Amino acid sequence: MKLVTAIIKPFTLDEVKAALEQLGVLGMTVSEVQGYGRQKGHTEVYRGAEYSVDFVPKIRVEVLVDDAAGDKVVDAIVSAARTGKIGDGKVWVTPVDTVVRVRTGERGTDAL
Amino acid sequence: MKLVTAIIKPFTLDEVKAALEQLGVLGMTVSEVQGYGRQKGHTEVYRGAEYSVDFVPKIRVEVLVDDAAGDKVVDAIVSAARTGKIGDGKVWVTPVDTVVRVRTGERGTDAL
Amino acid sequence: MKLVTAIIKPFTLDEVKAALEQLGVLGMTVSEVQGYGRQKGHTEVYRGAEYSVDFVPKIRVEVLVDDAAGDKVVDAIVSAARTGKIGDGKVWVTPVDTVVRVRTGERGTDAL
Ligand SMILES: Nc1ncnc2c1ncn2[C@@H]1O[C@H](COP(=O)(O)OP(=O)(O)OP(=O)(O)O)[C@@H](O)[C@H]1O
Ligand SMILES: Nc1ncnc2c1ncn2[C@@H]1O[C@H](COP(=O)(O)OP(=O)(O)OP(=O)(O)O)[C@@H](O)[C@H]1O
Ligand SMILES: Nc1ncnc2c1ncn2[C@@H]1O[C@H](COP(=O)(O)OP(=O)(O)OP(=O)(O)O)[C@@H](O)[C@H]1O
Ligand SMILES: [Mg+2]
Ligand SMILES: [Mg+2]
Ligand SMILES: [Mg+2]
Repeated sequence: MKLVTAIIKPFTLDEVKAALEQLGVLGMTVSEVQGYGRQKGHTEVYRGAEYSVDFVPKIRVEVLVDDAAGDKVVDAIVSAARTGKIGDGKVWVTPVDTVVRVRTGERGTDAL
Repeated sequence: MKLVTAIIKPFTLDEVKAALEQLGVLGMTVSEVQGYGRQKGHTEVYRGAEYSVDFVPKIRVEVLVDDAAGDKVVDAIVSAARTGKIGDGKVWVTPVDTVVRVRTGERGTDAL
Repeated sequence: MKLVTAIIKPFTLDEVKAALEQLGVLGMTVSEVQGYGRQKGHTEVYRGAEYSVDFVPKIRVEVLVDDAAGDKVVDAIVSAARTGKIGDGKVWVTPVDTVVRVRTGERGTDAL
């Protein structure tokens, strides 16, 4: 299994969610983060104003997927989160040894 | 070493903490997240009311452990976090190359 | 590629950021977390007062780096975040399979 993590612009979350649902992805976890990339945030626009500090608010999206779905999930997030402007975000994939569904104790891909 | 990550119902945190302490786990990191699983959050109850939006508040718990402790830590979290109702959460395990204790510079299992 | 994650005292963030910039690190993600280590937070000082509960506010810093930069980034964070007092934090390194820059679709080290 894999964990796909994406740092995206907050206003793209609905599109990212819809794209994942279209792929049949059944769960996700989101949280609020702040960050900057190569331009140090200086020229990114947030809520209509240029953001004058380094850190710009972003959303982290995390999706546990089986190995076979990893590439499709990455591509779906990348295209749903893309506006073409700087600061659109990063997506990365990390290995996962085990997943367990707490309610049932199911493990592995059955737990997704 | 391993990183055990759990997404749990917020009101189970005290029990999860107690279960980890019983195992001799000496540290943990928690944060606020929102998520949904197979039912898209629609039928989960939060603070006594059915939650009508997709995303339901959850707590993320992260615990760095040595390889030998991984399975016991997963089992302890799963049983402490289980209520038997949908939305009880997920636990997953990821590989960790290195851990460092900032104060001392210790590395590896000595840093846990 | 690697993901370097650090849990640090909030007031050290500026120094950690400066140390990473000196190394030429071009991006980072931060978020608010709470945690405790071996002393369970009981004797840690936060905002001038001893913190009387288990969980102490911390900042999580995450930096995606290429394999070659990993050790230098860990060392830079550890020395910038160190005050010599308990609760200074943890730094850990995890493997990353892929990174994508959302705006361009670049992958791998080109995406950092
Ligand atoms: N090296 C990195 N490590 C960790 N997080 C990063 C890194 N680079 C960027 N991020 C996160 O991703 C968010 C978006 O980054 P951003 O899209 O600006 O990347 P970029 O490489 O500067 O690309 P662009 O040139 O399109 O702006 C940042 O706000 C930060 O949260
Ligand atoms: N595939 C996933 N990827 C990332 N996070 C997930 C995933 N599935 C669930 N989560 C996280 O775990 C939380 C709890 O999920 P949940 O327990 O509802 O899983 P489930 O598979 O629907 O199991 P159940 O049928 O018992 O409800 C979600 O709110 C979300 O934060
Ligand atoms: N085993 C662990 N798993 C996950 N997070 C941890 C763990 N240990 C510590 N942390 C996180 O790191 C933060 C700082 O930990 P801390 O520096 O107190 O570690 P420590 O091992 O007790 O070292 P010290 O003796 O220097 O205090 C904690 O508040 C918590 O967020
Ligand atoms: Mg940028
Ligand atoms: Mg569910
Ligand atoms: Mg401590």
